[in-house]
Amino acid sequence: MTNTRQAISILAACATEARVEQLQRVLADRTRYVTICLEDVFQPQNASAALRSCDAFGVQDVHIVEQRNQFTPYRDITMGSDKWLTLHKYGRRHEQPVQAAAERLRKSGYRLAATTPRKGCTPLDELDLKKGKVALMFGAEYTGLSDAAMSAADEFITVPMYGFVESLNLSVCAAVVLRQLAQKLRQQGVAWQLDSDERDELLLTWLKKSVRHSGQILQRQGF
Amino acid sequence: MTNTRQAISILAACATEARVEQLQRVLADRTRYVTICLEDVFQPQNASAALRSCDAFGVQDVHIVEQRNQFTPYRDITMGSDKWLTLHKYGRRHEQPVQAAAERLRKSGYRLAATTPRKGCTPLDELDLKKGKVALMFGAEYTGLSDAAMSAADEFITVPMYGFVESLNLSVCAAVVLRQLAQKLRQQGVAWQLDSDERDELLLTWLKKSVRHSGQILQRQGF
Repeated sequence: MTNTRQAISILAACATEARVEQLQRVLADRTRYVTICLEDVFQPQNASAALRSCDAFGVQDVHIVEQRNQFTPYRDITMGSDKWLTLHKYGRRHEQPVQAAAERLRKSGYRLAATTPRKGCTPLDELDLKKGKVALMFGAEYTGLSDAAMSAADEFITVPMYGFVESLNLSVCAAVVLRQLAQKLRQQGVAWQLDSDERDELLLTWLKKSVRHSGQILQRQGF
Repeated sequence: MTNTRQAISILAACATEARVEQLQRVLADRTRYVTICLEDVFQPQNASAALRSCDAFGVQDVHIVEQRNQFTPYRDITMGSDKWLTLHKYGRRHEQPVQAAAERLRKSGYRLAATTPRKGCTPLDELDLKKGKVALMFGAEYTGLSDAAMSAADEFITVPMYGFVESLNLSVCAAVVLRQLAQKLRQQGVAWQLDSDERDELLLTWLKKSVRHSGQILQRQGF
């Protein structure tokens, strides 16, 4: 048994059965095949709602670029969902935060899809998930994605709209995209689920957050 | 030529060609086959974002029940979209605002579908639009739809979720539902567009809002 598995079994014994079942159920629906990257979202309620949607639709990783604005989730909007997500932040410590995010995503095998209300882009429906892992990039309200983010993108995706407004609210756009991709992943038969090592690692992280004094418990057992 | 058509041609002559084209284009994508009913939404940014999504996905009518909370759209969130929608309000002047809304919707041929995060409801995908017009009901954050609204519903719809959170943000839920129905209407071949009288009436309403001094202009022409 690996160290991670041992730690899991120690902590699982300290949690209720219902809790462990919930963690396992959510874990089976988690994906890293799709991720999102939020660039400089200055309205925390929008970014917080986007995190809640990531959790709801099973997207584990969120990349957050803080060029001008620092992001702190609003707990009454995330409903605690940010606690269970893996947040990757790019900010002042990076010379070029957007490029740093793009580089890291590309190294992890993602192609970058910028979301934009511009006409002539690929409609969301036609985004091909069989081509591989994809990171959806979302820009700030009003200004949209920066030039740097648009230059980093491999493709451009739009949510078809039929009305007077020229763009969707950011949290709405993210939700519509996440929901569509969550559905499509399950229909298209791509290998979207976490692999067994990723699952173990995430389960241990979640158990540490679920079990009181988990640090001390593990320490007592020699971890 | 009907009075409405005459008035349209008078005002259209005073608007730019681009504006008239935009109005016609949006009109062709408007529907009353689907409508939404928001019950007592106390966070105006959520209701405002829902209005913007209605416009974006072509849903013309919004029914707003104000039992405890009065709703005033936030213009920086609706981006002016509420100006082009038809809002129906039910409030203090009704003894039972929810029932009044339900009655009016039913008289207009809608069946009522309550959205709820409860398990065991019909998944959004399976909502059958071929069965006829449908009004989706959304409740307030935290509390959801009232007992009165739930009792008035003909069916119960849920957006499938896979995470820890037990519900979606209201504006997110409305957007996901609206987007899905807008797509499905166009795929299922139901007669979802406005009829010619409805189009004329709405076009005239929009022209009145688009043309300066439209009231005086029409008056001078004997309207």
